[in-house]
Amino acid sequence: MIQVGIIGTGVMGSDHARLLSTVVAGASLTAVYDVDRARAATVAGSVPVAGSVPAVRVLNDPVELIRDDAVDAVLVASSDATHEELVLACLKAGKPVLCEKPLAPTVESCRRILDAERAYGSQLVSVGFMRRYDPGYLELKAVLEGGWIGAPLLLHCVHRNTAAPAGQPSAMLITGSAVHEIDISRWLLGEEIVAVSAHAPRRSRAAGSTQDPQLLVFESASGVLIDVEVFVNARYGYDVRCELVGEDGTVALDAVAPTVLRHGSVTGAMLPRDWRPRFAEAYRRELQDWVDGLHADQVPRGASAWDGYAATVVAQATVAALESGVRQRVELGPRR
Amino acid sequence: MIQVGIIGTGVMGSDHARLLSTVVAGASLTAVYDVDRARAATVAGSVPVAGSVPAVRVLNDPVELIRDDAVDAVLVASSDATHEELVLACLKAGKPVLCEKPLAPTVESCRRILDAERAYGSQLVSVGFMRRYDPGYLELKAVLEGGWIGAPLLLHCVHRNTAAPAGQPSAMLITGSAVHEIDISRWLLGEEIVAVSAHAPRRSRAAGSTQDPQLLVFESASGVLIDVEVFVNARYGYDVRCELVGEDGTVALDAVAPTVLRHGSVTGAMLPRDWRPRFAEAYRRELQDWVDGLHADQVPRGASAWDGYAATVVAQATVAALESGVRQRVELGPRR
Amino acid sequence: MIQVGIIGTGVMGSDHARLLSTVVAGASLTAVYDVDRARAATVAGSVPVAGSVPAVRVLNDPVELIRDDAVDAVLVASSDATHEELVLACLKAGKPVLCEKPLAPTVESCRRILDAERAYGSQLVSVGFMRRYDPGYLELKAVLEGGWIGAPLLLHCVHRNTAAPAGQPSAMLITGSAVHEIDISRWLLGEEIVAVSAHAPRRSRAAGSTQDPQLLVFESASGVLIDVEVFVNARYGYDVRCELVGEDGTVALDAVAPTVLRHGSVTGAMLPRDWRPRFAEAYRRELQDWVDGLHADQVPRGASAWDGYAATVVAQATVAALESGVRQRVELGPRR
Amino acid sequence: MIQVGIIGTGVMGSDHARLLSTVVAGASLTAVYDVDRARAATVAGSVPVAGSVPAVRVLNDPVELIRDDAVDAVLVASSDATHEELVLACLKAGKPVLCEKPLAPTVESCRRILDAERAYGSQLVSVGFMRRYDPGYLELKAVLEGGWIGAPLLLHCVHRNTAAPAGQPSAMLITGSAVHEIDISRWLLGEEIVAVSAHAPRRSRAAGSTQDPQLLVFESASGVLIDVEVFVNARYGYDVRCELVGEDGTVALDAVAPTVLRHGSVTGAMLPRDWRPRFAEAYRRELQDWVDGLHADQVPRGASAWDGYAATVVAQATVAALESGVRQRVELGPRR
Repeated sequence: MIQVGIIGTGVMGSDHARLLSTVVAGASLTAVYDVDRARAATVAGSVPVAGSVPAVRVLNDPVELIRDDAVDAVLVASSDATHEELVLACLKAGKPVLCEKPLAPTVESCRRILDAERAYGSQLVSVGFMRRYDPGYLELKAVLEGGWIGAPLLLHCVHRNTAAPAGQPSAMLITGSAVHEIDISRWLLGEEIVAVSAHAPRRSRAAGSTQDPQLLVFESASGVLIDVEVFVNARYGYDVRCELVGEDGTVALDAVAPTVLRHGSVTGAMLPRDWRPRFAEAYRRELQDWVDGLHADQVPRGASAWDGYAATVVAQATVAALESGVRQRVELGPRR
Repeated sequence: MIQVGIIGTGVMGSDHARLLSTVVAGASLTAVYDVDRARAATVAGSVPVAGSVPAVRVLNDPVELIRDDAVDAVLVASSDATHEELVLACLKAGKPVLCEKPLAPTVESCRRILDAERAYGSQLVSVGFMRRYDPGYLELKAVLEGGWIGAPLLLHCVHRNTAAPAGQPSAMLITGSAVHEIDISRWLLGEEIVAVSAHAPRRSRAAGSTQDPQLLVFESASGVLIDVEVFVNARYGYDVRCELVGEDGTVALDAVAPTVLRHGSVTGAMLPRDWRPRFAEAYRRELQDWVDGLHADQVPRGASAWDGYAATVVAQATVAALESGVRQRVELGPRR
Repeated sequence: MIQVGIIGTGVMGSDHARLLSTVVAGASLTAVYDVDRARAATVAGSVPVAGSVPAVRVLNDPVELIRDDAVDAVLVASSDATHEELVLACLKAGKPVLCEKPLAPTVESCRRILDAERAYGSQLVSVGFMRRYDPGYLELKAVLEGGWIGAPLLLHCVHRNTAAPAGQPSAMLITGSAVHEIDISRWLLGEEIVAVSAHAPRRSRAAGSTQDPQLLVFESASGVLIDVEVFVNARYGYDVRCELVGEDGTVALDAVAPTVLRHGSVTGAMLPRDWRPRFAEAYRRELQDWVDGLHADQVPRGASAWDGYAATVVAQATVAALESGVRQRVELGPRR
Repeated sequence: MIQVGIIGTGVMGSDHARLLSTVVAGASLTAVYDVDRARAATVAGSVPVAGSVPAVRVLNDPVELIRDDAVDAVLVASSDATHEELVLACLKAGKPVLCEKPLAPTVESCRRILDAERAYGSQLVSVGFMRRYDPGYLELKAVLEGGWIGAPLLLHCVHRNTAAPAGQPSAMLITGSAVHEIDISRWLLGEEIVAVSAHAPRRSRAAGSTQDPQLLVFESASGVLIDVEVFVNARYGYDVRCELVGEDGTVALDAVAPTVLRHGSVTGAMLPRDWRPRFAEAYRRELQDWVDGLHADQVPRGASAWDGYAATVVAQATVAALESGVRQRVELGPRR
C-alpha cells in the first residue's frame, strides 16, 4: 500500500484525495495539508474510514508532510508559486512527487528542479499532464503510431472553457490552458516545439480586457504546424478537440456523449460545463499508473520534469510572441 | 480490505481477478478455484505481488473456497449449471456473493435461491448485470427520470455479437444475450415484463441451424413495448444500442468512439470486436460498487436475486414464445 | 415542353405547382383544378409568368382538365377518395398520370385501376411514393445492391410525425404514414410482403383515443422482417429513419443536418418539423424524372399502379392485424 | 426561355451544359464553344433533343457565340487566362455573363472588368462562387444572422483535395482552392479581408516540390480571424469543412452522408473523391438562380464582379505572404 500525502486541497487536490482513498487500488491517503486548515480538515474527514484504515491526518506544514514517515509519496496540488519549493523538498527527502501542472511557473525555477533531480540521481518527479492518460488521446497516438494516417503534417486544436475570472491576464490563456496543448503535442508527435507565433482576433465582449480568444501556432522540430484556438469565455460549454492531419489521412478527437437526445426540434448531446467530467477517467488512470509505478519501483511513465520544463519554456515564448506580435524561436538546450 | 475469492477463472473470472487485484480500491484477491486447476494457477500467478500482499492461493474445491477464513466475499464466474449450488453454499456460509448472470438457468433453481436468501434473513446475493453500471445506460436513466422525454412508450434495442459458436441452440440467443436487455429494460423502466412474443426472420447463413437473428417483443406492466433484435453472428462487430421513446422525445444509446478516422474515402470509427472493451468501465464500476457496499455493510446496489429470478422467468417465457410462435404471459408471483 | 395539369391544390398540389413551374426542366404548368376554386386561383396566380409562358388556367371540372388539349399529363393531388375516378379518367383519355399516394384507398378500387391500365395496353399510371427518389434511400439501395452488407435479414424503421389531428382513426397511422415504409421496403428488398402483425403499446396522452404509437411487423417473401414504429404525435419533430441489417453488415439512414450548432451546453442539429424539408429533394427528383420519362416516351420509372395496389393491400391487412390482434397473411394474386 | 451559350466545355462547362439542358427550369442551351472543337461537339451531342427543342450549335469562335442572336446569356468556363477578354466581350455585347472563378487571374484584369461594367451602367457580370448556394453554407449564415452564436470571432476552415497535378505551383493552392474560402468568408461575415499571413508546414511527400499543405490566416475588417488549411494532396478524399466561432456558441459545417455503413469493425460514411458530388446541389441552385434572375430582370444575386475582384486581390496578397513569410495588408480601394 503506497501511503500518499496531498499538499493543497482545493478543487484538484480534493478530487485527488477522493480518488486515492476510494478508487485507486494499492494506495491510501494518510496526510493532507492546505493553507486553509479547515479546508484540509473537511477533505480529511470526507475519506471513508473502513476497517483497519487509519484516519487521514491534517498536518500544519507542507514540509512536515513531505518528511512524514507515514508518507511514501507526495501529490502537490497547491498554488503554482509554491511548486518549486515543494518539489525541491520532495527531492531532498527522496520521495516521489506528482506535481500538478505547471511544474513551476518560470523557466529558471524549472531548471532548478531539473538540476536537483539530476543531482539526486534518479527520476522522482512526475507532472500532472493528465491528458496523456485520456482514452481519446491514447487512441489518437495509437492511430498515428499504427501508420493509419502517414507522417503528421498539421495538428488543429481547440481548447474552450465556459468562463474565466474577470480580468484574467491574457498570458494565463497560454500558461494555464494552452499549456495542455503544448504538452500533448510534444507527446503525440514525440518531438520538441522550436518556434511559436500568436494571432489575436477581436476580443469577445465577455472577456473584458483579456485577449480572448487567441490563435496560437507552434512549429515542431520536423516542421509539423500546431494551431491552437484557446478561448476561455466560450460560454456554451467546455470543449476540447483536435484533429491530427497526416500524409494519408486524419484522425480527430471530440467530446463523446454516450447518449443522444431528441427533444424540441433538436437532436443533440450534452457538453460538459468544465474539464472534470471530460477528463475524469484520465485523472483516475494517471493516479493509478503513478501508484502502480511506485509499487513496481519503475521510472514514472507520465510526464517528467523535463516535460514540465519544456512546457514552461514554450508557454513563456508564446506569451512573448503574443505580447510582441513577433514569432519566437524556442531554445530548450540539451535534454537533461 | 475485502478479501475476495473467485470461482471460475475463464474469460470473465480472469478479468475480474485482474480488476480486483489491480484496479478496484479496497479489495484483495485471496483465493481462486477453477475446474481446470492449471488455468486457476495461471490467473493466481498473474496477480502482481506488491509489498505485504500475500500470494493468491489456488484451492481444490469451490466449497472449500467459500468457507475459507481468508475469503470475505465470493465472486462466482463458473459455468451456469454450477451457479445454484455455489450461491446456496455462499448463503449457507453467510458470505456475500456476486454471481455472474444468469443467477441460475431454471426458474426453479432461482426460486430455491430466493427461498434460501429469505431464510437467511438479509440480502447477500448480487447478480452481475453489469450494464446497470455503464455510463451510457446511467445517462439514459437520468434523462428519463429527469423528465426530458416524458413518459416512456417504446424501447428499441439492438444486441449484436460478431460470431457465436457453431450449433449454438436458438434459445441461447435469449438466455445468454437478450437476457441483458431483459434486465436493463426492467431497471430502466422500473417495472416488470408481463408478456413476450418472438418473431423469427430468415436465418443468416453464418448461423447454421441456429435461429439467428431473432426479433423479440416484451410488454411491460404499464404497456411499454420493448423490441430487441438479437443477432449473434453479425460478423461486422459487437454492437449494442437502444433508443427509448417517450411522449415528448427520445434518447438513444450507441457505441461511442473517442476518435474519428478519415482514411481511404471513409470517415469512421472503430467498433469493438466483443463486449469487453464496450463494457470495461461498467465491470470496473460494478466491482468497485460491490466492494464499497461490503465495506459499508450496505444492501448491495446492483441486481438482486429477485432481478436474477425475473430475468430467468422472462427469458424462459421468451424461449417458449420462440418455439411455439405464440405470445406468452409472464407470471413472476409476489415479489419476495 | 410537357404541359401538366394539376388536380388538387392543397399542401401537396401547390408545392407540385411551384416545382413544375419554376424548378423542373422541360415542363410547364398549364391548368389547375381544385374543389376550392379560390385556392386553385391563388396557386395559378403565384406562378411567375415569364416571356412567352401563358398564364395557368383555372378549370371548373377535373375531367375537363384531363381532357384539355393543353394538358399532356396529369398530376392528381386531390383527396384520396377521388383518386380512382380521376386515374380512370386519365386512362380513358390516354394521358399519363402521376397520382399522389395512395393510388386508391381500397383494394377493389386499386384492382379496377390495374384492370383499366391493362385494358389500355401500356403503362400510364405512376404513384407518388417519392422516397424512391430520396438520395438517402437511393444510397441505401446502392449499398445493398453493391453487396456491402450481404443478404438482408431485418429492416428497422422509425416514422414519426410531430403531431396529428385530434381524433385521427388508428388505421390512418398505417394507411397514411406507414404506407411509405410498406412501399420503400418492397422497393428496397425487391420482393413482396406476405404477412403482417401489429403490436400496440400504451398510447401517448397527446394521441387521445388514437392508437399511437404502433409497432408493425411485416414479413417479406424471402423471410426478411421489417419492423416499423409509427408515431404521429412524437412532438419533438419529424423523424424518419431506418437500418437495413444484412448478413455481413448494416446500413442506416437518418436525417442529416448540414450544420452542427454548439450552444448552451448542447451540441446538436435541428430536426425538421414536417416531411417537406426532409423530402424536398425527393419531390423535385420525382417530378423531374416523371417529366424526363414523358419526353423520352419511356415506361415511368417511379412506383407503378401495381406498387400502389400492393401498398394498399398490405396496409389493409395491417389494419386488420391491428384491429384483430392476429397476424394476417397477405395475398396479392398474380402480378399484372 | 433563356437561351444560354457556354464557352469552355471541360469538366465544369460540360456539367453546366447538362444542368442547363436537363435540370434547370426556364433555360435552354443553344450554343457551345471550346478550343477543342471535338470536345464541344460531344457536349452538344449529349444534350437530349426533345420535341421542339433545336439542337445545340457548335460555334467556331467565342466572340461569335457571345454576339449570336440565339444567345441571351453567356456562361464562361474556359481557362482562367481567357476570362478577362470574354467577360469584356459580353459587356460590350450587353449580355449577362456568369464567369467561373476566378473572375480574372490578376488584380489589373479584374479592375478593367469593374471599369467596363461601371461604364456599361448596370450589373451584367456574375462570378461562379457556387458555395454561396450550398445548403450547408446557407444554414451557417442563417444561424449566424439568427443570433444563435453571437458576434463572430474566428472561422476555422479546412479545404482538402484528394490529389493535385504533380508540380503544381504553390500559389495555385491559394488562387485555385483557398480562393473559395476567401469568397465564402467575405460573404458569411459581410465584410472585407484586410490582412493576410501564411504558415508553411513540412510538405507532404505526395506533393513533390509544391508547398502543400499550407495554413493561411486572414483578418477581417472587424478583427475576425479566418484560418484555412489548404491541402490538395490529402489522398484520403475530398473534404471541405468549417467552424464559425461566435461569442455565445459555434456552428460547424461538415460533409454529410445520408447513410452510415457498419462493416468490418468500422462504422462510417463515404467521403466524396472530388468536389462535384459535394457541391452538385450548389451548382444546380446557382444556375437556377441565375436563370431566374434573368427572367425577372433582376440584379444577379450571386457573387458580383466586385466579389471576384476582392477574391483576386486577397489571393494575390496571400501568395505574397507565402512567398515572403511576411504578413500583408490588403487594400481594395473604394467599392465600385
